[in-house]
Amino acid sequence: MLDQTIKNFISKDYFSLSASLSVGEAINCIRQYDDSSLHEYYLVNENQVLCGRVTLHCLLMAQPDQGIQTLALKNCYTLNAEDDQEEAARLFRQHSLFSLPIINDQLQLVGIVTYADGMHILLEEDQEDIERMMGISGEGNAVAYRDLTISQHIKNRVGWLVALALLGFISGSILMHYESALDQLVILAIYLPMIADSGGNAGSQSASVITRALALGELRLKDAWGIIRREFAISLGLAAILALVAMGRVWFFTSDYHLPGDLSVELVMLCISMALSIQVITSTLVGAGLPLIASYFKQDPAVVASPAITTLVDISGLLIYFFLASKLLLNG
Amino acid sequence: MLDQTIKNFISKDYFSLSASLSVGEAINCIRQYDDSSLHEYYLVNENQVLCGRVTLHCLLMAQPDQGIQTLALKNCYTLNAEDDQEEAARLFRQHSLFSLPIINDQLQLVGIVTYADGMHILLEEDQEDIERMMGISGEGNAVAYRDLTISQHIKNRVGWLVALALLGFISGSILMHYESALDQLVILAIYLPMIADSGGNAGSQSASVITRALALGELRLKDAWGIIRREFAISLGLAAILALVAMGRVWFFTSDYHLPGDLSVELVMLCISMALSIQVITSTLVGAGLPLIASYFKQDPAVVASPAITTLVDISGLLIYFFLASKLLLNG
Repeated sequence: MLDQTIKNFISKDYFSLSASLSVGEAINCIRQYDDSSLHEYYLVNENQVLCGRVTLHCLLMAQPDQGIQTLALKNCYTLNAEDDQEEAARLFRQHSLFSLPIINDQLQLVGIVTYADGMHILLEEDQEDIERMMGISGEGNAVAYRDLTISQHIKNRVGWLVALALLGFISGSILMHYESALDQLVILAIYLPMIADSGGNAGSQSASVITRALALGELRLKDAWGIIRREFAISLGLAAILALVAMGRVWFFTSDYHLPGDLSVELVMLCISMALSIQVITSTLVGAGLPLIASYFKQDPAVVASPAITTLVDISGLLIYFFLASKLLLNG
Repeated sequence: MLDQTIKNFISKDYFSLSASLSVGEAINCIRQYDDSSLHEYYLVNENQVLCGRVTLHCLLMAQPDQGIQTLALKNCYTLNAEDDQEEAARLFRQHSLFSLPIINDQLQLVGIVTYADGMHILLEEDQEDIERMMGISGEGNAVAYRDLTISQHIKNRVGWLVALALLGFISGSILMHYESALDQLVILAIYLPMIADSGGNAGSQSASVITRALALGELRLKDAWGIIRREFAISLGLAAILALVAMGRVWFFTSDYHLPGDLSVELVMLCISMALSIQVITSTLVGAGLPLIASYFKQDPAVVASPAITTLVDISGLLIYFFLASKLLLNG
């Protein structure tokens, strides 16, 4: 499920301190309440409005007759019950929180997310991201592998598999369309898997890097243009290296191979490394762009699964490859 | 880097309490030390041997003249400085720790891993897992996307890309070997991408599910046989569904298509769905098996990257497909 709110994780069984208490009175309240899982306490005014927090440590350091308001820490990260649980995970992780207060629109304290629940949400979100990247539906609800029945496992996995098997049909049609090109120049088939796979790999890599950076809050949607430019620069470098590898491979292999007509090895090298370069650049940009587009439409970037990218750039790879081959090698 | 020890995360700037103190004396020590980041304190005997822990909460609940030893919690998770930092991440996550004491072989307390460092390790380990699954080398050192230079990004990604581009060459050679089969029956090319992609997807899915379950400690190596049996059952279900999809696709498509010789649509349907089924079953088992094998050799299961699985099952898919096609359709 996308956008699960933190509602289910709000503990109502929390304990707040009136901001008007003295340190000695506060310690007495804490003693009476006796909940060993709490390490900090939230202060509220007479209207239940959150106005700070105190840790056990600062209560211990203070004089008993001091007002707790004077030693309260004002910097509280807060969320609303309707906020996405992903946001809570991010706050726990980035700011090493021990608990997270939840307030309503009137700024009143309505509950807390405990440390243990924070860890649980973090785990769910991470798992959800990974599963989505791999095209497993599930609901990221951190159910252990063993606790799912076999038919639930099948249900989680089959959706993408069927969708992508159907999409693979498009690649098949492209192959059939270029049947005559393959017929004339069988050597094209040899480099086909390299073009398709390299695209899938480059696309999955950039997608996972960008998805992760968005999830951790390192990158924001407003950086989109900068990210695309950066990925473009990275893909140029990758394309150059892979083009050299492909050239070496063609040179090494084609010396034994009888090329039809007046085709030169150099032209085949040029065609295959150009196709590979364009494919790697396109795929890297597609891989980086899709999570950004998902994020623009307020979807989880991880929803753009790696298998989907692989299948997509399979199609683009075939088009690039056969287009170049028919122009350069077959004069088509 | 595999197997980073927690050594770099051990804070020497910790504070332990002598187990012989009274609660009042302990509170005085804590007041003098005044480190607001600590929420629990470790007790040591005269030989610096760890003998329990006390939280601020239990100190606050106790009488000042009580001995702290009487209220110490004996259940401490501990690690050794040479242990893998992955183990620390697992303990923090599973047991909602606030800090983790590190002991030496004489059971003496040598330092602690703080909560903030625990979160940092957790983040690194998660990131490392995801990057490895996507075939990005890096060292999982949680460096932000922006903080890496373009050439570092290229360096992290290029290794697998080159390796897999070279591996893709094997698929190319298989294709060339079966050149005459493709020549005789161009319809084979149409379903080729579906076979290859479905295998890659099924394999990546099972690999990521198993890798994750191993990383979270839900599954252990001793469950290997049970996991393989379970994945086999899952793959049978997936294969059956995908075989039906493939049959429908062939039926729908081939009615317009002129089949050479006396080939019947039924035989083509049978051949393609059989190949797809065998490919999905094989790939699921390969995807599940490789992380288990890595784990057996004391490697991080996530080291078996998803692109590697995709490329591997590409090769197996081609072999299965052309073998079946030459036996069933071409009487080869």
